[in-house]
Amino acid sequence: MPATSTPRPRRLHLNAFLMNAGHHDAAWRHPRTQPERVTDLRYFQHLAQTAERGKLDSIFFADGLALWGKVKHNALGGFEPLTLLSALATVTERIGLIATVSTTFNEPFHTARKFASLDHLSGGRAGWNIVTSGTADEARNFGQDEHLEHSLRYDRAREFLEVATKLWDSWEDDAILLDRTRGIYVDDEKVRPIDHWGEHFVVQGPLNVPRSPQGYPLLVQAGSSEDGKEFAAQYAEAVFTAQQSLADGQSFYKDVKNRLPRHGRSEDDLKILPGICPVIGSTEAEARALEQELTDLQVPEYGLAQLSGMLGTDLTGLPLDGPLPELPEERDINGNKSRFTLVAELARRDGLTLRELIARLGGGRGHRVFAGTPDQIADQLEEWFTQGAADGFNVMPPHLPGGLEDFVDHVVPILQDRGLFRTEYTGRTLREHYGLPRPEGRLAPSATAAEGQPA
Amino acid sequence: MPATSTPRPRRLHLNAFLMNAGHHDAAWRHPRTQPERVTDLRYFQHLAQTAERGKLDSIFFADGLALWGKVKHNALGGFEPLTLLSALATVTERIGLIATVSTTFNEPFHTARKFASLDHLSGGRAGWNIVTSGTADEARNFGQDEHLEHSLRYDRAREFLEVATKLWDSWEDDAILLDRTRGIYVDDEKVRPIDHWGEHFVVQGPLNVPRSPQGYPLLVQAGSSEDGKEFAAQYAEAVFTAQQSLADGQSFYKDVKNRLPRHGRSEDDLKILPGICPVIGSTEAEARALEQELTDLQVPEYGLAQLSGMLGTDLTGLPLDGPLPELPEERDINGNKSRFTLVAELARRDGLTLRELIARLGGGRGHRVFAGTPDQIADQLEEWFTQGAADGFNVMPPHLPGGLEDFVDHVVPILQDRGLFRTEYTGRTLREHYGLPRPEGRLAPSATAAEGQPA
Repeated sequence: MPATSTPRPRRLHLNAFLMNAGHHDAAWRHPRTQPERVTDLRYFQHLAQTAERGKLDSIFFADGLALWGKVKHNALGGFEPLTLLSALATVTERIGLIATVSTTFNEPFHTARKFASLDHLSGGRAGWNIVTSGTADEARNFGQDEHLEHSLRYDRAREFLEVATKLWDSWEDDAILLDRTRGIYVDDEKVRPIDHWGEHFVVQGPLNVPRSPQGYPLLVQAGSSEDGKEFAAQYAEAVFTAQQSLADGQSFYKDVKNRLPRHGRSEDDLKILPGICPVIGSTEAEARALEQELTDLQVPEYGLAQLSGMLGTDLTGLPLDGPLPELPEERDINGNKSRFTLVAELARRDGLTLRELIARLGGGRGHRVFAGTPDQIADQLEEWFTQGAADGFNVMPPHLPGGLEDFVDHVVPILQDRGLFRTEYTGRTLREHYGLPRPEGRLAPSATAAEGQPA
Repeated sequence: MPATSTPRPRRLHLNAFLMNAGHHDAAWRHPRTQPERVTDLRYFQHLAQTAERGKLDSIFFADGLALWGKVKHNALGGFEPLTLLSALATVTERIGLIATVSTTFNEPFHTARKFASLDHLSGGRAGWNIVTSGTADEARNFGQDEHLEHSLRYDRAREFLEVATKLWDSWEDDAILLDRTRGIYVDDEKVRPIDHWGEHFVVQGPLNVPRSPQGYPLLVQAGSSEDGKEFAAQYAEAVFTAQQSLADGQSFYKDVKNRLPRHGRSEDDLKILPGICPVIGSTEAEARALEQELTDLQVPEYGLAQLSGMLGTDLTGLPLDGPLPELPEERDINGNKSRFTLVAELARRDGLTLRELIARLGGGRGHRVFAGTPDQIADQLEEWFTQGAADGFNVMPPHLPGGLEDFVDHVVPILQDRGLFRTEYTGRTLREHYGLPRPEGRLAPSATAAEGQPA
């Protein structure tokens, strides 16, 4: 009797954002981390397998196309995300594999192909965090002196995604016939050029990879500026976002979800995952002590350089115990606009000195840091999840591997006991974990004909 | 007593060139192949592990940036080589991993980084087959209507390689200090921008990956035109080449080796590996029967399309049992010049009809095909190896996985018994397998100073 069947309970989604020795900028100095292993594949293998042991939806690697400032004081890994995730695909079975790739300094043909390849070789577990890149240092590794203007980057990103999805659709799902007797491997009427002729790209196609298990990789987006939110509402299926308070989280959640109908999409088509950096202790005092330990290990010079980058303002030489100087307006920021605004407001609201701001940003670079017991952390997640601020979380352990192990061993079981999180994987693909449909190919002539004609 | 110690015997090197259902263009129709598995990672895992069981130096995946002609009649895999090899790195331990990446449609920062990443995650087993791409279909996937002219492609390739090696050298080997007490992760005087400002590329650097186990991936090259040979003599450490006869092989070998001193290099700095497609039978008759079986499965329409591409001439509709039409001159070919010449000469020398030529090219696309018993094949390899035509071979099994299994199980042991091939890996890295040195970083100020000064 379908009319009276109970609806499936709403479950939250968890992504493990993995970063070298951990998200805290001083993590590598802490005795619980292993920075000497960040160029060792087995280290990341252990992290991926730990996340999979916790039944998390996915792991994620961020990326940048330049050596970011002050490498002197922070652990740098050796891996490019797509090659790393391909390697991790063979030592995991279910967990999703999400990589950042920039639309600013790549070509859609290469990018579409690599994600299709990762999706095939992982059995449908690929996800793409679409970023537009934000720094002049990156531009200068690709023959450009100045960085593309913010809204132009989003123009390019939109067309990039249009080309990529056309390429993924350039093979129909049933194109491969494998008719050995007649010698027909592919029904070549089901493989078509895309003949894209646009502002930024001219691409003939078809892709040289058959349509992959998920059709498209899961499409993730992480910019929270006006351009970013609009892009997310149009294309993204999951959004990583930095939100400091429940109220901010609720307002962002509502804002993005409200944009979906304009693009013919429903609430469920996009999952919002705020970042959380959980500092876990068996008592609250222990958690706070760990947080303080990490703060004490910070190198102020590094924190100032990071902050200068986020605020588009050179802070070198300013007194650490003084206030922030006058800052530019968001409209004059050409990097990460939403992060600029978040940090500037945080400092203004709480009247922080530079030193205090550096300490506050050390754990999550603007993402929310919460120190507490596993129960307290589960309470926080439940509150955001049930109060309209989150469909799940982007979990950013302050130190690795311990911070992820603690989360999986102590926080996940509480969420499971409360019926908020899966106890076993029920799906095979990343889209299935997130409860998202597999996109239909759009380029088949029958599909096109059907659109314009009565059924 | 070093003066009387016997020199280490010269050993040959073997690379397994893996391609979907096998190198013969009709392999996928043969009952011994598994074309339904060419988008299944476990299929390639089995191939890689088989090659490693045979103690081969390396496996290799070719690549193209467009769906090549007549996909209708040949099995197409789903994998982009770098993502595939990263996945295979975790299920193998010793064998080298070589991928083709084109210098024509890529950026040196991305390419240098991905190979450094593969080298780290495989523990020093990455190799790069440097190609310049040859088709208009590829150009049209990257916004270009016409393909770059042949010698311009090599200009770009040279500068591309210059930038890539500078990026790999932008970190000194001992740059990572990991001084937790002082908070110094990297000695930032040992990580430097490259500030490359050239004709084709402007790249600031440094790379965002520490120097990898091999320093550079093994540098492989496969063009045999005049430009190709000159490029190989300057940069390559291994050369894949198509040679039909011992005399041709000897002349190519001598030609390339003789070019090395001009670039300050010695004979041992570059290994020449002609392609061989071994059709193996337990008797000669059985081998010939297998060869005939494969020929009988060829789809002439596919062969004609392939041949049209190689010869830069549309052959559609010509009678299969007639001769070749008038062909253009090599200087008017803008694709693979050396392959054009090889095929044109083969047809002319042996007076082949189109059908005969298609049959002759079915197994190796211009590479040498040899049908025989394991002993006869070993004899051929030994002859080329000892008569100055080869330092080893690019083994191209006509059908997979069986053709590789037969080679590993029946030909390799004979080569081992004759003392021509290793019985165990003695090295850990791909460079060690090929007996090639790890390049020193060149960008350290001390290294630069030492060059210009008396010792």
